[in-house]
Amino acid sequence: MRERMILPTARLQHGALHLIDQTLLPAEYRIIELTTLEAVCEAIYMLRVRGAPALGVAGAYGLLVAVQETWGDGSWEFHSTVPDDEISSTESLAGFPAGVSMHDLCARLDQAARTIAATRPTAVNLKWAVDRMATVWRGDATTTHSLLADLLDEADAIHREDLDMCRALGAHGAALIPDDAGVLTHCNTGGLATSGYGTALGVVFAAVEAGKQVHVFADETRPLLQGARLTAWECHRGGIPVTVLVEGAAATLLSQGSVSCVIVGADRIAANGDTANKIGTLGVAILAQRYGVPFYVAAPSSTIDPALSDGSAIPIEQRDADEVRHFAGVATAPDGVHAYNPAFDVTPAELIAAIITENGAVRPPYRFG
Amino acid sequence: MRERMILPTARLQHGALHLIDQTLLPAEYRIIELTTLEAVCEAIYMLRVRGAPALGVAGAYGLLVAVQETWGDGSWEFHSTVPDDEISSTESLAGFPAGVSMHDLCARLDQAARTIAATRPTAVNLKWAVDRMATVWRGDATTTHSLLADLLDEADAIHREDLDMCRALGAHGAALIPDDAGVLTHCNTGGLATSGYGTALGVVFAAVEAGKQVHVFADETRPLLQGARLTAWECHRGGIPVTVLVEGAAATLLSQGSVSCVIVGADRIAANGDTANKIGTLGVAILAQRYGVPFYVAAPSSTIDPALSDGSAIPIEQRDADEVRHFAGVATAPDGVHAYNPAFDVTPAELIAAIITENGAVRPPYRFG
Repeated sequence: MRERMILPTARLQHGALHLIDQTLLPAEYRIIELTTLEAVCEAIYMLRVRGAPALGVAGAYGLLVAVQETWGDGSWEFHSTVPDDEISSTESLAGFPAGVSMHDLCARLDQAARTIAATRPTAVNLKWAVDRMATVWRGDATTTHSLLADLLDEADAIHREDLDMCRALGAHGAALIPDDAGVLTHCNTGGLATSGYGTALGVVFAAVEAGKQVHVFADETRPLLQGARLTAWECHRGGIPVTVLVEGAAATLLSQGSVSCVIVGADRIAANGDTANKIGTLGVAILAQRYGVPFYVAAPSSTIDPALSDGSAIPIEQRDADEVRHFAGVATAPDGVHAYNPAFDVTPAELIAAIITENGAVRPPYRFG
Repeated sequence: MRERMILPTARLQHGALHLIDQTLLPAEYRIIELTTLEAVCEAIYMLRVRGAPALGVAGAYGLLVAVQETWGDGSWEFHSTVPDDEISSTESLAGFPAGVSMHDLCARLDQAARTIAATRPTAVNLKWAVDRMATVWRGDATTTHSLLADLLDEADAIHREDLDMCRALGAHGAALIPDDAGVLTHCNTGGLATSGYGTALGVVFAAVEAGKQVHVFADETRPLLQGARLTAWECHRGGIPVTVLVEGAAATLLSQGSVSCVIVGADRIAANGDTANKIGTLGVAILAQRYGVPFYVAAPSSTIDPALSDGSAIPIEQRDADEVRHFAGVATAPDGVHAYNPAFDVTPAELIAAIITENGAVRPPYRFG
């Protein structure tokens, strides 16, 4: 079952970033092909691709799309075969125009990196991935051809490490899931949020693969309904029983004893364990504490930002009020009223029973760094 | 401003129940005219009219619609002029067919009462109103004409008392609202939920009328969005600043100190103060406690059910899963997944700082009965 959950969430094919357009799910499963930096940033901002690990992969490949857009002339192309082959061929890069200087190439990459990192400021993986790519073009490559090959290798490495991370994280997390478990989750942290089979939801997939019975309770996750649209779709596709609920029903559900644990993902984790995640996570953590249900965070170690001592320093993206005031083209609130629409909240470490990464499960007190 | 907030939420005109169809707001303001018991029950079940006090008024008038439907022949009609005139004329009842027996009339009323009360089992006001009407037809009327007149008088009395209740409740509650207040509310408890200007939201209207500055924060209230659609519409219409938020954002909002108090309505209150209200209320109460924000319940005393010792005995209506899985005709979750959709939750009395009725504000410990 696990391999079936590996979705083509974000891949680089023939110079284009291929994404599952997650805004169309569950009604339609469509792969979109992005050939410009602007299209990549639009897709990131509009959440056609989302989830911290998947954003890292999309951000890294997005830099290559920017180069392809600028100098692509049909005689060369970036093309990745990850995850189907271990290592992508770099032969297709040989036709890159000889007249392009290292200086111009690096300048384009610098500019593209700034643009991509600014698209969603809270998601540390986006910045982490473009920074990691920047160490390549600021490194010791001596020719544009070797630099392009190194950039493709590095982006593929980010992609491949994400797959490996999902497998390792899932195995560590599955040990915390009892048999016949009810697991409440928020937002989407499955194969659509990573290039593998997920973080928090990947823990569920790994537990099921290990032979445990798990029933997933998915918060629908307003305003963009990633839980109802994406988590429910992934579970249903994988044959895992899933029940969708509105956020307002979580307190009653938790009070009734059918939830064994809550598992959520993370967009950024501070050194003390304070965790930024999708808006609504903090509320679930407080409710879980009241009803004595363990609350776990599952995320790649790249999500940990040891430079931040606590959650108060995590920048919180405020998104467009129309995400709250409209749905599917229909006004849900009168024109002209205000809407409060932070994309994330910060759950204090004291509410988190364990933080699970690819390196294992850590219990409080948390001291990352 | 207060009188402007008195909406034609539920009125009996020329034998028909006239309702604002609340499912069409905020896009469209439309009055619908219901001339059959089936149409009245459909409107109640589909939440075209909702809110405990308004349901009581609609239920009482709905009984009269059932009689009009059965024996209406153009020669007589039920017609109410409340709230515009103090007492409705009963002259228009004179043409009621002489051949109809008291027995047949009472049998029709008994059957209509059972049908109406079963439409939404949690809402005690619906049952309360039809039971109160039943004391009339089980009383000492000697002619069908006098019984019909007594029934119209009683339904009008329920209507008029609801208007008076709103005014008294608002005045008691307004004393609890500081100046420059931020008030978080859930669902809709304004003029659309009553025949007056509201209970919990009526407290805000009364505070504004008393010269206080109030900013309303309205939980959108999934799945049916009564907060975004109705509360925001009423505030905006009344010139009161209002900000809509998804339920998931309430924890962060409460943590930031801009909310002075939470005020919600109630669908049923047990003798010990445990309160059933729209799903999501319990979560807000727990979050308010964590952040030290007082949580108030405002409801007519008819909402108190002293026969129930605590909240565990309150029946909770489970509603159609498609309310969660669809919105505005668009699937928000894959076909075939389950949805958990209780209409109400029960907030324990320990989380409630005061219960405000038309008789005043009561502090814990609560002992109604």
